Amino acid sequence: MRFASSIFVIVSSLLFISCGNERGAPDISNEEKKALNFVIIFADDLGYGDLSSYGNPTINTPNLDRMATEGQKWTNFYSGASVCTPSRAALLTGRLPVRSGMASNKHRVLFPDSKNGLPASEITLAEQLKTVGYQTAAIGKWHLGHKEEYLPTNHGFDYYFGIPYSNDMDMIGGLLPYWEYWQQPNDSIKTEHFNVPLFRNTEIIERPANQHSITKRYSEETVSFIRKNKDQPFFVYLAHNLPHIPLFVSAEANGKSERGLYGDVVEEIDNGVGKILTVLEEEGLAENTIVVFTSDNGPWLSFKNNGGSAGLLRAGKGTTWEGGMREPGIFWGPGNIKPGLITDLGSTMDLFTTFSSLAGAKIPDDHVVDGVDLSETLLSHEPSPRKSVLYYRGTEIYAARLGDFKVHYVTQGAYGELGERQEHETPILYNLSHDAAEKFDISQEHPEILKQIQELVLAHKSKLEAGKDQLAERE
Amino acid sequence: MRFASSIFVIVSSLLFISCGNERGAPDISNEEKKALNFVIIFADDLGYGDLSSYGNPTINTPNLDRMATEGQKWTNFYSGASVCTPSRAALLTGRLPVRSGMASNKHRVLFPDSKNGLPASEITLAEQLKTVGYQTAAIGKWHLGHKEEYLPTNHGFDYYFGIPYSNDMDMIGGLLPYWEYWQQPNDSIKTEHFNVPLFRNTEIIERPANQHSITKRYSEETVSFIRKNKDQPFFVYLAHNLPHIPLFVSAEANGKSERGLYGDVVEEIDNGVGKILTVLEEEGLAENTIVVFTSDNGPWLSFKNNGGSAGLLRAGKGTTWEGGMREPGIFWGPGNIKPGLITDLGSTMDLFTTFSSLAGAKIPDDHVVDGVDLSETLLSHEPSPRKSVLYYRGTEIYAARLGDFKVHYVTQGAYGELGERQEHETPILYNLSHDAAEKFDISQEHPEILKQIQELVLAHKSKLEAGKDQLAERE
Repeated sequence: MRFASSIFVIVSSLLFISCGNERGAPDISNEEKKALNFVIIFADDLGYGDLSSYGNPTINTPNLDRMATEGQKWTNFYSGASVCTPSRAALLTGRLPVRSGMASNKHRVLFPDSKNGLPASEITLAEQLKTVGYQTAAIGKWHLGHKEEYLPTNHGFDYYFGIPYSNDMDMIGGLLPYWEYWQQPNDSIKTEHFNVPLFRNTEIIERPANQHSITKRYSEETVSFIRKNKDQPFFVYLAHNLPHIPLFVSAEANGKSERGLYGDVVEEIDNGVGKILTVLEEEGLAENTIVVFTSDNGPWLSFKNNGGSAGLLRAGKGTTWEGGMREPGIFWGPGNIKPGLITDLGSTMDLFTTFSSLAGAKIPDDHVVDGVDLSETLLSHEPSPRKSVLYYRGTEIYAARLGDFKVHYVTQGAYGELGERQEHETPILYNLSHDAAEKFDISQEHPEILKQIQELVLAHKSKLEAGKDQLAERE
Repeated sequence: MRFASSIFVIVSSLLFISCGNERGAPDISNEEKKALNFVIIFADDLGYGDLSSYGNPTINTPNLDRMATEGQKWTNFYSGASVCTPSRAALLTGRLPVRSGMASNKHRVLFPDSKNGLPASEITLAEQLKTVGYQTAAIGKWHLGHKEEYLPTNHGFDYYFGIPYSNDMDMIGGLLPYWEYWQQPNDSIKTEHFNVPLFRNTEIIERPANQHSITKRYSEETVSFIRKNKDQPFFVYLAHNLPHIPLFVSAEANGKSERGLYGDVVEEIDNGVGKILTVLEEEGLAENTIVVFTSDNGPWLSFKNNGGSAGLLRAGKGTTWEGGMREPGIFWGPGNIKPGLITDLGSTMDLFTTFSSLAGAKIPDDHVVDGVDLSETLLSHEPSPRKSVLYYRGTEIYAARLGDFKVHYVTQGAYGELGERQEHETPILYNLSHDAAEKFDISQEHPEILKQIQELVLAHKSKLEAGKDQLAERE
């Protein structure tokens, strides 16, 4: 492992020098072409068990499966929160959303009448990569503030194409009988029922957005951005609005999956992944691009077969059970990513630190960054430097993982369901490596582990400076 | 598909002619070397979710995953029963165990004091392949009768090496506190607690069998049989005794898996799979060998982390929920098996018919065979001819699947647990393609499907001739 590790250090240094040169030099030399490009493909409400490579029996995702086989398949990879807004803030800033104020106990996410968004003081991965000469695009769902000052183009992205919040918002004609309605096959739901705007940069170009074609258009926009920027380092953050309900697909994808409408949607996303891999290969970019696939949180189980599956994991979206925050995590990059199954811990927050590091962008030293650098794991299978995960709900820690062990201090049922908040006087303890399904409480056998994790949590809390709640105020 | 299908017909005919010649011709010409060899690797109590390629987060099975990627990964592949003895009878005879009398409502499996076994009148896959000149070996667990007349060597196998029943039988010093004991890590259980005999052919060569080395020895025996028989067509039925409890591993495998002892066992089996693939490649046999991996029934959930996982599927061993009978089904055969994800229905009973067909052995016409011929699906992705699955418990049909839909007439909790038998006046109906986890009953919406499946079951019952119960009598 030492030999591989040394190689990594050299490669990493070269990248740093190469990218460093680019800051003031728009003319790209051959040497500089070696800078790595990054594509993050981020699904919405897709669960741990929704890809064939993660055990789904009837959703067929050959392109994502190919990425998993040729690259790394992470099986302990976490989102930064169990719902949209904080999860996205975590990924883009590399910080726990409680720090940026993008987590709240009043409203769990931003709404179309929310007043605020991601503060300008936060530094996004796009801003990081801009400092070393990258072209950057956000394509898809934003959900970090829909007012102009909060849009991607004011957070380090050169280009934005997408819907600024969830695809179920801005309902026309008043509230539909929400829960019951979407638990049935939703053939009768029309894309026009949702008056969601589609933006290009800061302009609304379509309203309501045609959601039937949105998944396809997001993938095509990504392909087009890659082609346009093939001669310079680029970063694309492709955040699909789907498979968040309501579910829509294009005519081509309709009825293609054996899993029904939900499967059609996931397979259309997979199809887009195939197109992205193809353009990278056609343009000779595959060797210096890293593509990541993951999801913002677990499946929205309230919607029955219109929601996804967390596979063997317990519960789903909105909860701090594993099904709420553990996600598929696939890294592809022939020539860079060393293929294999990775069971070490990782988080979407680590993408900030890892890609900054690989691109030679300096990690900000004036505020706390929670992401760790996974480069050596990705390039040479060194152990992941991430040893712990904090499971926040709003601004409160419900659970914490250290190594194999997870403690639940508070639990609550799935989002939208009638689960009661339950505080555990004796916390529940699981060994997630042996018991990923969180079935067998071992708190009685291991008080010393409870104590160790409690110390970790207290140390974290004692230093925490929570940001001003950005989600609370609505108009 | 038509073109691929034509190729299949030609290949199949050639194989038939080639193998046909062999019957009376022990001298093998080059032409005849093209006959396909078959290796069935059959795990014991391994669940749908116990391989990394089927979604397990911490059991690492690179060799089986490689088979799945290079070959076919079936996601709707069933065992013939939810417990050992009937499941094994089904695989080897291609018949529902109720026909052979190897299913019983008195005792679910054979015991060391059982009087009977698989009747001589039954025709095994080994006997089939003997008619076309194959060398045949059964290595591992038999569980179809331990008396000499019932042993593998009296059922078409040229060679037997293994334990004739389950590894938890023949307990020394009386009954251990069975349930409670094995739900804990079983470091204190010794292989000497189980006085199970190890046979070579019809001789006991070791008693108690050293179970620490048994998994490794089974794989080595398989490798050795393949090397010895490389110049003639062969069939190996490698039926591991593990990961059935009690769990034992060799010193090399001990502590290697992040999943604990259960994971160590599965990874040791996977390691053996790697050795088998290697010998096939080294001996130039890979191109004309088909290797299948599957399991006899779902995970024994009563034993907590000493049992496996059914992944997203409901319940486990002993039940007619999906977790009891749906298994990993991996077919590997470079040059023969057309790679892909197969979501069509298949059954271990189909191996009898498929391999008979591929080897040119005539399917018996004097008794009912339930297996169907999957050759065209394996070789060219034609739709599987299997359209239905019957879920027997003992001699009673508890559930039935037709296409996407499964009806439960009777349900009962997992084997060994206190689940009560429950008859459903209105049967439960699931769409397994949309809802593999069996969560959402749709019987009210689809009375016509209930009716259709009921007709299928009645038609089956009206023609069924049940064999004499071979499991009931004990000494």
